[in-house]
Amino acid sequence: MDPKLRRMTLKEWVAVESDSVQPMPHFRQELVRMMSMAADMLRGLGASVHSMDLGSQQLPDGQSLPIPPVILAELGNDPKKPTVCFYGHLNVQPAQQGEGWFMDPYTLTEVDGKLYGRGSTDNTGPVLAWIHAVSAFRALEQDLPVNIKLILEGTEEVGSVALEELMKKEKDGFFPSMDYIVISDDLWLTRTKPALIYGTGGNCYFMVEVKCRDRDFHSGTFGGILNEPVADLVALFGSLVDSSGHILIPGIYDQVAPLMEEERKLYEAIDLDLEEYQNNSQVEKFFDTKEEVLMHLWQYPSLCIHGIEGTFDEPGIKTVIPGRVIRKFSIRLVPHMNVSVVENQVKQHLADVFSKRNSANRMTISMILGSQLWTANINDTQYVAAGRAIRRVFGIEPDMIRDGSTIPIAKIFQDIIQKSVLMLPLGAVDEGEHSQNEKINRWNYIEGSKLLVAFFEMAELHS
Amino acid sequence: MDPKLRRMTLKEWVAVESDSVQPMPHFRQELVRMMSMAADMLRGLGASVHSMDLGSQQLPDGQSLPIPPVILAELGNDPKKPTVCFYGHLNVQPAQQGEGWFMDPYTLTEVDGKLYGRGSTDNTGPVLAWIHAVSAFRALEQDLPVNIKLILEGTEEVGSVALEELMKKEKDGFFPSMDYIVISDDLWLTRTKPALIYGTGGNCYFMVEVKCRDRDFHSGTFGGILNEPVADLVALFGSLVDSSGHILIPGIYDQVAPLMEEERKLYEAIDLDLEEYQNNSQVEKFFDTKEEVLMHLWQYPSLCIHGIEGTFDEPGIKTVIPGRVIRKFSIRLVPHMNVSVVENQVKQHLADVFSKRNSANRMTISMILGSQLWTANINDTQYVAAGRAIRRVFGIEPDMIRDGSTIPIAKIFQDIIQKSVLMLPLGAVDEGEHSQNEKINRWNYIEGSKLLVAFFEMAELHS
Repeated sequence: MDPKLRRMTLKEWVAVESDSVQPMPHFRQELVRMMSMAADMLRGLGASVHSMDLGSQQLPDGQSLPIPPVILAELGNDPKKPTVCFYGHLNVQPAQQGEGWFMDPYTLTEVDGKLYGRGSTDNTGPVLAWIHAVSAFRALEQDLPVNIKLILEGTEEVGSVALEELMKKEKDGFFPSMDYIVISDDLWLTRTKPALIYGTGGNCYFMVEVKCRDRDFHSGTFGGILNEPVADLVALFGSLVDSSGHILIPGIYDQVAPLMEEERKLYEAIDLDLEEYQNNSQVEKFFDTKEEVLMHLWQYPSLCIHGIEGTFDEPGIKTVIPGRVIRKFSIRLVPHMNVSVVENQVKQHLADVFSKRNSANRMTISMILGSQLWTANINDTQYVAAGRAIRRVFGIEPDMIRDGSTIPIAKIFQDIIQKSVLMLPLGAVDEGEHSQNEKINRWNYIEGSKLLVAFFEMAELHS
Repeated sequence: MDPKLRRMTLKEWVAVESDSVQPMPHFRQELVRMMSMAADMLRGLGASVHSMDLGSQQLPDGQSLPIPPVILAELGNDPKKPTVCFYGHLNVQPAQQGEGWFMDPYTLTEVDGKLYGRGSTDNTGPVLAWIHAVSAFRALEQDLPVNIKLILEGTEEVGSVALEELMKKEKDGFFPSMDYIVISDDLWLTRTKPALIYGTGGNCYFMVEVKCRDRDFHSGTFGGILNEPVADLVALFGSLVDSSGHILIPGIYDQVAPLMEEERKLYEAIDLDLEEYQNNSQVEKFFDTKEEVLMHLWQYPSLCIHGIEGTFDEPGIKTVIPGRVIRKFSIRLVPHMNVSVVENQVKQHLADVFSKRNSANRMTISMILGSQLWTANINDTQYVAAGRAIRRVFGIEPDMIRDGSTIPIAKIFQDIIQKSVLMLPLGAVDEGEHSQNEKINRWNYIEGSKLLVAFFEMAELHS
């Protein structure tokens, strides 16, 4: 397929505002439209496509939203060939022009060989690379060396609830006849060297609310005579992590697997230029050495503080004491941490800190997402096949890496339908997933399709 | 005037979205429209009205916005009568339907004798009460016992910059021929007992920015390997104030005037039912006793943490590390604290705390507003006249109180044009200025005009 045509399709798909995070009806309509565009394209390739309706979803505030349908598609049914199942998602993170984007995030914009747009790398671009790889065989009138199945969903950024339910329903239907599942929803460790990922972190995402009353206060009238909910939050969050990233919650490191000598060597072998990594990320300085950085990413848990709701967030001066605030943070889990143990440790710790403040406010903590971590056996067939495909297309050995991001669905695939997973990322480290000015390099997008074509051929050999 | 007619005017004026805080052109247009409506009404009463154009204002981000004109009006010019000048503002704090308001904040809504709407108490309602008091004499074809001047402005919530400049220009023009200036931009201490205010706090408003890079990060990819700007902010803000409201910035209490035995007795005499005050404010518990609460309001400085810019502030889950965040806080000044001393103490303290963290991020602190405090001599003519007017209309002694809110213009009036000030509040303590569901009691609004009529008569006697 002509590279220009591929970019045209990516432009059309990026233009859909398929934000699954913000609960406005507009975004849900866009998500449903996105899924239906994908279903149409797959039907055009001759796939048999099922668009699975999964009803609606109840939000914590009582609002009900339609769940975008999950697409289950099949191409080829030859019992002599292996069946490779691809999983991808077509929902995106929130994005808004002006908030740090140099262009409208929903208008694919090419600058210096980089294709900028929300979803370009996470995960719309890689989904299209898969579809293009399949259509390449069709275009050349060649037989596909493998049977293909595709699972495309629209709630990945909010925990893939819909899909988990569907897997339980289709456990004996769509899912059994596949050899393994491939996910291309991650990034290489560097800008130029392909990688295979054999583990991802788990995640516990917490929401802490501190409430005095539902309305705000005039700080001139009430300042100094009451416990400010924001001051309580500042104290609570100040007790979570120190300035070197060490988590201060008692017991949190108890479950962390000790570092083996073998792993330390693995880290040393990885070809990461820390200075270049810092420059690419536009970060002045990461913690410590290359090995320390890799261990902080893969070996130790980390704690990140996210947004705050309920305070005045516009420019300008407002003399107000917020009456009720909600702040979010998450802890990334590493082997062998367990979601429910972490949940208890966090709740106990914050309750202790809050009670010592003697605040008249009310605090509530909830864990709004808890996803277990995932690890793979790199000697499995699909890793061997992918390694050979990379050597053929790029002429080098892939980095064997782990990733701090959670792809909860990988663990769910293993647990519910007992299929093993291959993580075959197509994007470079600086693609900016979840951030402003997300992009995919045109080179990665095009070479990614070639890599997948090679992978289909290697998959046939290693079946 | 028929009370219904008064509410109708208030409804029309509240409907104007005269928000001076948010820098969008729409709000500035509304502000300009508001000022022109007020000018028209005053001309209708026979006043000579000057609408003073003050050019435009440069925001920190480079944007330029028109400054709403200041209205200078005069009614009567009899050298035998005293000249009372009223100062009020017609701009309002930001307000948005859905963000805690039970109605559209710009649609005046009466429930149980309460007139809800943005500006109803701060300061549109009191401005109209003044105009209604003047028009009452006109309606009865009676001579006004005093000459009236009015100064109405539109930037009070952002520091009255426009007015300060005008005063310097009109120092020898509009301003000399007045006996004193009356401001009705504050609240009583209770729901039912009128008060006179003889002092207001100063304010130092700070903005702290911590920046790693301009874009956000994916927390899965970058969590644990860098200094998070939000974590730096949490540590900085955690060093500002303890859970009992005590400010932790070194030296900050050095300038605070010691408590005199006489003042302690004044506090004891004030008729404040702490439990009722808490109930009215919907606050579980203020700090300590009635005397402690009053001292925290008037005798000690206080520190409030306001909004944050740059984090994800919507509901839902977003796994993001904000790359650049701005957080605001303010310190209320009490006698004899000085703006520039406080500015230095704050900047020094935060720089010390930040440097101990060894963070790779950049921190910038700026004081975006610094207003000196104000106190009055309660034996001045205007206080004596106002006290008599209150006794006549309400049959009781007013509470003599101070207010933590800043009314920077009072201090500026004293300093630049050397006129003394009377603060004659019309609203009750629970009107909710700056908060959601701001209101003015219909009773306060109507009796307020009556009080002003009586005040004009007393002012003639005490001239």
